[in-house]
Amino acid sequence: MSWIAELESLLPDKVSRTPQDLARCASDKWFASKEPDAVVFAESAADVSAVMTLSARHKIPVTVRGGGVGYVGGCVPINGGIVLAMERMNRILEINPADGVAVVQPGVITGELQEEVRKLGWYYPPDPASLRECSLGGNVATNAGGPRCLKYGVTRHYVLGLEVVLPNGSIINAGGRCHKNRQGFDLTGLFVGSEGMLGIVTEITLRLIPHPQARAIVGATFRTFAEAAAAVQLILGSGFLPSALEITDSFTLNAAREYLGPDRIPPGEAHLLAEFDGSAAGVGTELREVTRLLRANGAISIKPGTTDPEIEAFWQMRREFSYSLRHTGLTKLNEDVVVPRSRLVDLVEFAASLQIRSGFPVACFGHAGDGNIHVNIMVPDMKDPDQRARADVALDDLFRHVLSLGGVISGEHGIGIAKKRWFPDAVNDAGRALHQAVKNALDPSRLLNPGKFLG
Amino acid sequence: MSWIAELESLLPDKVSRTPQDLARCASDKWFASKEPDAVVFAESAADVSAVMTLSARHKIPVTVRGGGVGYVGGCVPINGGIVLAMERMNRILEINPADGVAVVQPGVITGELQEEVRKLGWYYPPDPASLRECSLGGNVATNAGGPRCLKYGVTRHYVLGLEVVLPNGSIINAGGRCHKNRQGFDLTGLFVGSEGMLGIVTEITLRLIPHPQARAIVGATFRTFAEAAAAVQLILGSGFLPSALEITDSFTLNAAREYLGPDRIPPGEAHLLAEFDGSAAGVGTELREVTRLLRANGAISIKPGTTDPEIEAFWQMRREFSYSLRHTGLTKLNEDVVVPRSRLVDLVEFAASLQIRSGFPVACFGHAGDGNIHVNIMVPDMKDPDQRARADVALDDLFRHVLSLGGVISGEHGIGIAKKRWFPDAVNDAGRALHQAVKNALDPSRLLNPGKFLG
Repeated sequence: MSWIAELESLLPDKVSRTPQDLARCASDKWFASKEPDAVVFAESAADVSAVMTLSARHKIPVTVRGGGVGYVGGCVPINGGIVLAMERMNRILEINPADGVAVVQPGVITGELQEEVRKLGWYYPPDPASLRECSLGGNVATNAGGPRCLKYGVTRHYVLGLEVVLPNGSIINAGGRCHKNRQGFDLTGLFVGSEGMLGIVTEITLRLIPHPQARAIVGATFRTFAEAAAAVQLILGSGFLPSALEITDSFTLNAAREYLGPDRIPPGEAHLLAEFDGSAAGVGTELREVTRLLRANGAISIKPGTTDPEIEAFWQMRREFSYSLRHTGLTKLNEDVVVPRSRLVDLVEFAASLQIRSGFPVACFGHAGDGNIHVNIMVPDMKDPDQRARADVALDDLFRHVLSLGGVISGEHGIGIAKKRWFPDAVNDAGRALHQAVKNALDPSRLLNPGKFLG
Repeated sequence: MSWIAELESLLPDKVSRTPQDLARCASDKWFASKEPDAVVFAESAADVSAVMTLSARHKIPVTVRGGGVGYVGGCVPINGGIVLAMERMNRILEINPADGVAVVQPGVITGELQEEVRKLGWYYPPDPASLRECSLGGNVATNAGGPRCLKYGVTRHYVLGLEVVLPNGSIINAGGRCHKNRQGFDLTGLFVGSEGMLGIVTEITLRLIPHPQARAIVGATFRTFAEAAAAVQLILGSGFLPSALEITDSFTLNAAREYLGPDRIPPGEAHLLAEFDGSAAGVGTELREVTRLLRANGAISIKPGTTDPEIEAFWQMRREFSYSLRHTGLTKLNEDVVVPRSRLVDLVEFAASLQIRSGFPVACFGHAGDGNIHVNIMVPDMKDPDQRARADVALDDLFRHVLSLGGVISGEHGIGIAKKRWFPDAVNDAGRALHQAVKNALDPSRLLNPGKFLG
């Protein structure tokens, strides 16, 4: 492979073919795996441009890798070629409260930026569950969400500007550091959520907002999921916009009781977490009023939290719901479906019926305010062909039902390889043709992250 | 013109060639004017699709028209052909608090949707100054902003789904009614702000949020614009995120004193308006704390407003700033530039020097929190060739300076025809080539809104 020798001479000390690096860059958190022919540890936009120019000349596929913690195989180099690893481009270049921006390289870990920004009294709200290990470049590629996106919006709402290397090697700037920008099409937005298939982001300018002065939280349990879902509507319908509104079903709660001990989780078949932020006086009032609302509407246990440790304990519990499922020893197929908010109960009732039909446990929890529920189908052994086939049938069932409710098959993770099979059910012929037209306009040789949902 | 006969037989009662309709559809609020050959008053996506199919066959330009109140000539049919007027598609199809959405036809007036939504306790935040006459389709085409976008984000942040007719006549759905959607590229976002050059929006699904329970406002004057700009930084830097933060310079204030009488506007060379919303307790505290902050930092007059009429009076005064400028009898070239927020003072100092250099009065006011300042160059007679030429020199100066500050030449109005000349200064060769690639992918015959900033 002469192109590898050329690559090595072009970017000395930045190309690796060690078995460790090739293995490490073969997969994400999903189970697909394919080793690339070489890994490039880019250190600048110029490096990335050099890779793309070489890729174009030799027709070598290039797949970008951020934190490698995606759930849909989005960074798996399924056609081999080059993995462009962004981990060395991990510098926070600027945090500028006067302009309300941070400028970062794509390899910066999301949680690290949040902490640095917080020290100055500012806030970068998007909070994917993986924030301690995911990269901002990956967040841009997937338009990452998280619980606080209910109030604050997803990653897209914070990306003001991007430096992007196009498949032809040219370096463009989309957007900038201004908080509003109407200079032509929204190319910034086109790259956000494009799953590494249109260009390679080498610098990101993010909008920061003042950090809320205070927050407060309330956890409540209910006799039924339907009562908890009704409380979601009641809170929003009463003029409250919580910073997060998280719901958990009985399967997950029982797994948590098993894992954490029964006394950590109060009795009830559904759990609701509502967090508020803003001025101290405001969140205090909201906490009291929402508590009253919950009490009057069927909550059988209510627990508030007002100090940082108390609030953090709630979020720790919320994370442990996820660990509890893992602790069952089953493989968790975490499907981040979304339904119109009024259909939460339909979705969870369907999940219960799916559990019976498929024979697999099904656990639901997630961002109730957005209708974005993680439906976890718990499979004993995904390597067993029979179980894998049954899991696929269950997913067919789930996605068909979600789409019939007016929902979408992914709200946060993207399509990647994992949901490629269902993309034509979700996006019709005309919509897919438009995707292909955009893809061909930007990447006519189709070398950037091939083998994913556009083929 | 046989295509017109064909059009008339295709869409009886929907095609007009009356002098009144042709004249009415020739221009917006800018001064360019060109009559189309025919106006089609579309009533459905099928009508729009029929027009586009005919347009493709006969190579007839099509320019979409919403409320017709843009500032950059974006809906002027500069190459003739068909104007596709959306005013008959003016129905609110659904307001659904349980799903947190409204579904509207593109001709619905922004303010009317806001009022209907408000009656149910819900909120559609984007508030362009023209909200009583602009259409939601126009808001989508321009990604409209407004004062409250500081806290709530621009139109883009509220568009969940679009039905779009492509130039080839096919009808696609981008996004949907879910609050998160990661099914492929963000095509919804690609159409928002595309100034009618990529497709024709025939239905819009908008995100609604709970209406804040309360609001409060404080107006303050300062000895200098620099002190008012410093107060902007201080408010944001102290953890407050106002729902609006509006600044006004001395030229505008003096025009208002002239127009409204001296006692309506307190003394001072700059005016700042900070509005807060949220829970009643929260906004009360924020008002008190920000008032204290302003008093300690140079405000020479401070006036709070807490009731709806009091708050509305402030916004009425804010609107009258604009009328006051019109009352001068001069033509107001309203340039919606944006600078990084830390450069507000540089921008206004430049505007003062531009006033001297150009001989035209220059008035600045706008959305201080976003750095989005409307710089109004006041020209006695734009029909006078000499004055027009001098105005162009002044605009050259202004945009060059704004770009040198890291700013952008449009934050709200778009490029259209008015700023076409400066588009290459704002977006470099690689960026413009990417615009053209996207344009060609969606509209290869380039029949949709031709003659604008992409030629």
